[in-house]
Amino acid sequence: MKKIAIIGGGAAGLSAAIYALRSGAEVTLFEQFGLGGMVANIDKIENYPSYSSVEGWKLASDMSSQAKALGLKTVRQRVVSLQKSDMGFTIITDKGRYEFPAAVVATGTSHNKLGIEDKFVGHGVSYCATCDGAFFRGQAVAVVGSGRAAVSEATYLADLCAAVFLVSPEAELSADSKAIEELFARPNVNVMYKHTVSEILGDEQVSAIKTFGNGATQTLNVSALFVATGAAPVSDFVHIDGLAKSRGYLVVDGRCETTVKGLFAAGDVTDGSLKQIVTACADGAKAGSFAAAYSATVNR
Amino acid sequence: MKKIAIIGGGAAGLSAAIYALRSGAEVTLFEQFGLGGMVANIDKIENYPSYSSVEGWKLASDMSSQAKALGLKTVRQRVVSLQKSDMGFTIITDKGRYEFPAAVVATGTSHNKLGIEDKFVGHGVSYCATCDGAFFRGQAVAVVGSGRAAVSEATYLADLCAAVFLVSPEAELSADSKAIEELFARPNVNVMYKHTVSEILGDEQVSAIKTFGNGATQTLNVSALFVATGAAPVSDFVHIDGLAKSRGYLVVDGRCETTVKGLFAAGDVTDGSLKQIVTACADGAKAGSFAAAYSATVNR
Repeated sequence: MKKIAIIGGGAAGLSAAIYALRSGAEVTLFEQFGLGGMVANIDKIENYPSYSSVEGWKLASDMSSQAKALGLKTVRQRVVSLQKSDMGFTIITDKGRYEFPAAVVATGTSHNKLGIEDKFVGHGVSYCATCDGAFFRGQAVAVVGSGRAAVSEATYLADLCAAVFLVSPEAELSADSKAIEELFARPNVNVMYKHTVSEILGDEQVSAIKTFGNGATQTLNVSALFVATGAAPVSDFVHIDGLAKSRGYLVVDGRCETTVKGLFAAGDVTDGSLKQIVTACADGAKAGSFAAAYSATVNR
Repeated sequence: MKKIAIIGGGAAGLSAAIYALRSGAEVTLFEQFGLGGMVANIDKIENYPSYSSVEGWKLASDMSSQAKALGLKTVRQRVVSLQKSDMGFTIITDKGRYEFPAAVVATGTSHNKLGIEDKFVGHGVSYCATCDGAFFRGQAVAVVGSGRAAVSEATYLADLCAAVFLVSPEAELSADSKAIEELFARPNVNVMYKHTVSEILGDEQVSAIKTFGNGATQTLNVSALFVATGAAPVSDFVHIDGLAKSRGYLVVDGRCETTVKGLFAAGDVTDGSLKQIVTACADGAKAGSFAAAYSATVNR
């Protein structure tokens, strides 16, 4: 008997469910909020292979329907803890306690926010240049952040956009020297050290931002602001000895198994090299398939 | 200036093109036949996340349109050789010679065929249980083959189908003992050693197969025949020292880069753990993104 739990109902979790259900497993998915995860909140998606353009809620709802039609069982509870047990894994929620022979963690990340951007998310404010950069081809854009992600977002955007203002709250950029060299090789990048973003301007869409630094405020006319002030994987609820993490992200192998046998992970919560909807779905396909197969070996 | 070549126009190659083009790269895709690869020939697809059911030609054509709208340049020539050069990589086709700073190999595999099944492919004959097994839930099916793939296909199907006949041309099965143990733990599997499939019966759909073994012919009433007599990666045209292969499949890292710097690979031609449309697309997203980024570093 194949039987698995999936924690997280975004693209990775739903894809894991689809693959596990199709292989004959009984699947229970834990998700506190609605299904669809981050995808459901994206305005327009143009890089999921096969859709030239699709709204996030539509893609999310299609994935949910597909999993539900295959017999997905969802538990709308908040997972407080995932632990190892004799039987496999114990999931403790705010309302109950469950046992499964195998589990998939697909809880994603939570972005650090500026606190002033909510109104403009999907309307010029983005947390992902690879996802949304192409919408601003040939235009002026800004990136806020001082770390590895900010440097790589700015570099990526410099090849697409007319001008990139990198607003760095810190006095210097924290990334490896090769990445910084890459950035400075682009003539259309302007780094503003010790500056913060104090306001976002625009009606429907971002039209400018106000920055503050060196005691003065200035206005930059940009059509987009990419917030790259960090994101944190949602993995603190996993309490298992021997589980390898890298900066909080779960380390997985080519089959999306973690360093704990029978525990798989998929999507943004993993240490994968590229974080996209399609890579989350592929991780899910692997995690769901191999978790289901594993559960059959221990649960006979 | 970002500039890459992609060899192969299936799901992996098209996804690589989409991601590279969106990052601002100039992309040339080499494909001898029409775009879409193996996907274009699949009758019905029910496991690509977001589509409960879609015809293969539709999915393939949507992916092609998406890449073309982004500016994909295709060269309809047969690639004869891929070599290392001072500039990066030389692609030699039946009609010309091209130079690129970075390249993505996405040439897939070619299935070994029985030679009698062409008429029934997509109508009961399949080369992939994970792809098509769910269409035959609760029915009797057959698998032909004696190797690792045949054993794993039969095991997968045993959890879904009423009965599985594994027609093994060899006197024994060649797979690791754990996999064989898994198979024999399923009571609904019947292995027929030293048997071959001599005929496939049915009007529109497969309704039975004839097997030959021990000097006798018998008829098995099955709704599907899964051909698992092996597949070979199309990688012989790559002539580069230091390129690691595993049974002909190109070994890639988590960024889909091969052991040769600047040479990436995606989809069925790689040594990936699960071969599905969505995993091919995710590989393509990685290979396309990282190849484009790499090309900018060497081609400035």
